[in-house]
Amino acid sequence: MTTIDSTTQPESRPARAGQVTPNRVTEFSHVGIQVRDLSVSLPFYRDQIGLEVVSEWLVEDAHTREAVDLPEASLNMALLRLPGTNAYMEVIEYRNVERTPVDPYHPNPGTCHIAWYVDDIDELYHRLVGLGLDPVSRRVVPINGGPLDGGKVIYMTDPDGIRIEFLQSDLYLDTTARPSV
Amino acid sequence: MTTIDSTTQPESRPARAGQVTPNRVTEFSHVGIQVRDLSVSLPFYRDQIGLEVVSEWLVEDAHTREAVDLPEASLNMALLRLPGTNAYMEVIEYRNVERTPVDPYHPNPGTCHIAWYVDDIDELYHRLVGLGLDPVSRRVVPINGGPLDGGKVIYMTDPDGIRIEFLQSDLYLDTTARPSV
Repeated sequence: MTTIDSTTQPESRPARAGQVTPNRVTEFSHVGIQVRDLSVSLPFYRDQIGLEVVSEWLVEDAHTREAVDLPEASLNMALLRLPGTNAYMEVIEYRNVERTPVDPYHPNPGTCHIAWYVDDIDELYHRLVGLGLDPVSRRVVPINGGPLDGGKVIYMTDPDGIRIEFLQSDLYLDTTARPSV
Repeated sequence: MTTIDSTTQPESRPARAGQVTPNRVTEFSHVGIQVRDLSVSLPFYRDQIGLEVVSEWLVEDAHTREAVDLPEASLNMALLRLPGTNAYMEVIEYRNVERTPVDPYHPNPGTCHIAWYVDDIDELYHRLVGLGLDPVSRRVVPINGGPLDGGKVIYMTDPDGIRIEFLQSDLYLDTTARPSV
């Protein structure tokens, strides 16, 4: 494994002139998920997960269509945020293009999962199961060992089968306190 | 669209007793992607994207296997962070389970994309194309209008075809400055 010299990793946007390090990403922006039906996913993420809807609109502008290389596409989408933070996600329903739902079974290469902390994982688990969602985890699972020792974890699915992970812990994983390898 | 009363959205972990609001997520933890081969994806995200490797290990503990409901699975995985921040992602290669790569074509329901800011999008675009990655965007696309007006955007693919979006802008999308709808 390679040791990364943190002095070569700019934390803010540097002047380009004379820079000898490769161009790097500077900030995380967001994660987006693509869904079958925004009218199903939006109430799920708003009412069950507790995200706030910041914007909801039909994207048909030329630069978005060019960026995704789909000149006819319409993106029926919403931008949601964790209340009180700038952590946001996009939920996008593509229209006017052929779509084939993928199998979001988590071992499948090309899939993703999204993880949040929650303050009552048992209540959440039973509520989401009560909605008919697939509880990947057959029970709320105690965490033994590691940085969240003593916490609890579940994997669930969203309405498209996308895996969402919930963690409850009195501990907080601060990766900035850990050296890189 | 529903107006969300921000007074019902706790920003930190509240006492549970007497709480009348539904249980909500309290913090974003991470996004994870599942890949074919960690030995391919890890150098990509480290050397081309510029993430730091915090940990790399083979996960075979009982609580993880129970949470993902795959008692035989091994997760060959790495935890990477954006240097200087606590924004981290997991890159996971499942082993000892059947896997079928999905088609991460972005309109497909069940897929995801991840977006970062970058300080020289033109250099990045040409560098990644030079590596043989699929440039979803046929050129670096100027953004006209919206909160990142005047910026630039590209969609690219990672080694598994997972869509990654890069943004360059002098503007910063602070969703906390925007009311919810």
